[in-house]
Amino acid sequence: MHRGGFLESPTIAYETWGELEGNGDNAVLLFGGLSPSAHAASSPENPAAGWWEDMIGSGLPLDTDRYFIICINSLGSCFGTTGPASIDPLTGERYRLHFPVLTLEDVAEAGYEVLQHLGVEKLYAIVGCSMGGMTGLGFCVRHPEISESLMAISSATRALPFSIAVRSLQREIIRRDPKWKGGDYDPADPPVVGQRLARKLGMMTYRSPEEWEQRFGRERVTAEDHAGNPFYIDFEVESYLESRADRFAGQFDPNCYLYLSRASDLFDLAEHGGSLKSGFKRLRLKRAIVIGVRTDILYPPHQQKELAEGLSEVVDDVRYVPLDCIRGHDSFLVDMDAFRPVLCNFFDTCNC
Amino acid sequence: MHRGGFLESPTIAYETWGELEGNGDNAVLLFGGLSPSAHAASSPENPAAGWWEDMIGSGLPLDTDRYFIICINSLGSCFGTTGPASIDPLTGERYRLHFPVLTLEDVAEAGYEVLQHLGVEKLYAIVGCSMGGMTGLGFCVRHPEISESLMAISSATRALPFSIAVRSLQREIIRRDPKWKGGDYDPADPPVVGQRLARKLGMMTYRSPEEWEQRFGRERVTAEDHAGNPFYIDFEVESYLESRADRFAGQFDPNCYLYLSRASDLFDLAEHGGSLKSGFKRLRLKRAIVIGVRTDILYPPHQQKELAEGLSEVVDDVRYVPLDCIRGHDSFLVDMDAFRPVLCNFFDTCNC
Repeated sequence: MHRGGFLESPTIAYETWGELEGNGDNAVLLFGGLSPSAHAASSPENPAAGWWEDMIGSGLPLDTDRYFIICINSLGSCFGTTGPASIDPLTGERYRLHFPVLTLEDVAEAGYEVLQHLGVEKLYAIVGCSMGGMTGLGFCVRHPEISESLMAISSATRALPFSIAVRSLQREIIRRDPKWKGGDYDPADPPVVGQRLARKLGMMTYRSPEEWEQRFGRERVTAEDHAGNPFYIDFEVESYLESRADRFAGQFDPNCYLYLSRASDLFDLAEHGGSLKSGFKRLRLKRAIVIGVRTDILYPPHQQKELAEGLSEVVDDVRYVPLDCIRGHDSFLVDMDAFRPVLCNFFDTCNC
Repeated sequence: MHRGGFLESPTIAYETWGELEGNGDNAVLLFGGLSPSAHAASSPENPAAGWWEDMIGSGLPLDTDRYFIICINSLGSCFGTTGPASIDPLTGERYRLHFPVLTLEDVAEAGYEVLQHLGVEKLYAIVGCSMGGMTGLGFCVRHPEISESLMAISSATRALPFSIAVRSLQREIIRRDPKWKGGDYDPADPPVVGQRLARKLGMMTYRSPEEWEQRFGRERVTAEDHAGNPFYIDFEVESYLESRADRFAGQFDPNCYLYLSRASDLFDLAEHGGSLKSGFKRLRLKRAIVIGVRTDILYPPHQQKELAEGLSEVVDDVRYVPLDCIRGHDSFLVDMDAFRPVLCNFFDTCNC
């Protein structure tokens, strides 16, 4: 592991779509955000819709008739990949807080291991969304020879103190839930209250005040929802957060969340060489695109610009695409009309 | 009470500075934010610094040699004024959740009662900061004959869904603390964990990402602070939030906080007549000033503009002063150099 320690025989879950050509001429490696699984799109083996269903498939921007797409469930996560919720083969017990410090460099390295396993020696491109954009940078710094192209979506060179503060508070909220029990919670009875509160806080940074102003305004919930509690729910926006919390809690292992969340805070491209400039200098990219969203609170536009400008110093062909989406950081998951043409253009696919 | 119910013989805590002239020619009524007491400035009776110490006094913008300043501890608060933590004289028990629904109209009405008590029949001006700006609007709508001038600082006509979401989550965090006990907590053992977490969330909206980027960047805490916990504190911004949480928790009664927080969500000038336009039409102001801050997340600049534009329809002399402070919503408490000249100009006091 990047900061010490090791994992005995870890498992890395991944999914692929399309056919590999040669040793990787058409391969695209996709690193996602903090919470998704490797199931980015449906497949015959798993027909459920994936988290980027509208983006990956035949005739879609990541066209599976042409490209071989690989998506990794991040190291430290809980959807098939080894993480704090997994059994440590050396002890027969769950890792829990005995899992070593996790960094995005480790997440990137797990992706590299998958490529080795698949016989992919080079990549057409790396696509990284949110946390995955930093993972992609970490990958390119450590294995500059593999990919000539990088697409960073709503990401950054490193987290801002505001984003660190939000994630730190999310972690503390989970840790303060009595059911967390210092990380030794019963997997059948996890700290769901803390997870729900942390998810609500997350939603405030994944979406935007502007979206909510248009979408909810000051709409009230119907009286039935009050349930006789003077501090339950008055407004539609509160009801929305309830439903989003319900959808998340219980799905994601709390300790895995803590590890991945902290890894997002710890990543800093400047640690690769001592400065951002030297970090960028380690890249061997020939083409890069940085896509950001005006209303992103978590990785705001000035960070996208900083990333694009830093890349411009060392990469010949750099595009910076600021999008005017109102749905904030999560726009790449929900505002397909804005993102589709940018991806199509980059991958020279469908005619958007 | 505005939404039903009543309080038996409530107490309203207030402080005054300066000498009253006539029936109020030189009187200024100050409504503060959610958390402060009536102690806005030091006095012979209480030499401790107040929450607007730099603004109120001899030779200061709110010049006590000329003006008679009155500051109210909001109804529902816990610094001398009757609130959920007070004993209900009818039962001999604390009100707790039996306190009636609190609105800013009630807070304004409590201010009116203080004026009656003091023999103040009119005001030179009302000054309202943050929640107090909405309270001031509520006062002017209900008692349009009292004041010809209003200064609204970092406030709004009503809260946005994002601000509602933040406050709703703060309230839920407190309510989810097992020590809250459905509002029946032991006053000697309140839900401090929930209060601390809620305060940290509050600080994220009281300050600004821009300030924190300049002030903390990615500075790390020294290793000692880790205390062997992998999820304790890595960054200075986390340490800062710890210290701010320490300062607040235990000071403010949790139920009072819940009531005042919800009152901030509920206020809507449009409820006075059915629309914002009709709400504004109930005002009889001759002069108004709206001061806002570019980096305010809680009451963002476009709300200040909306307030100023609405006032312009019915008030002859309206000024809108957008300030370029980087310290967010709290700037009026900490960025005196920016606010002082605006207040001096409005009150025709010291030469800034």
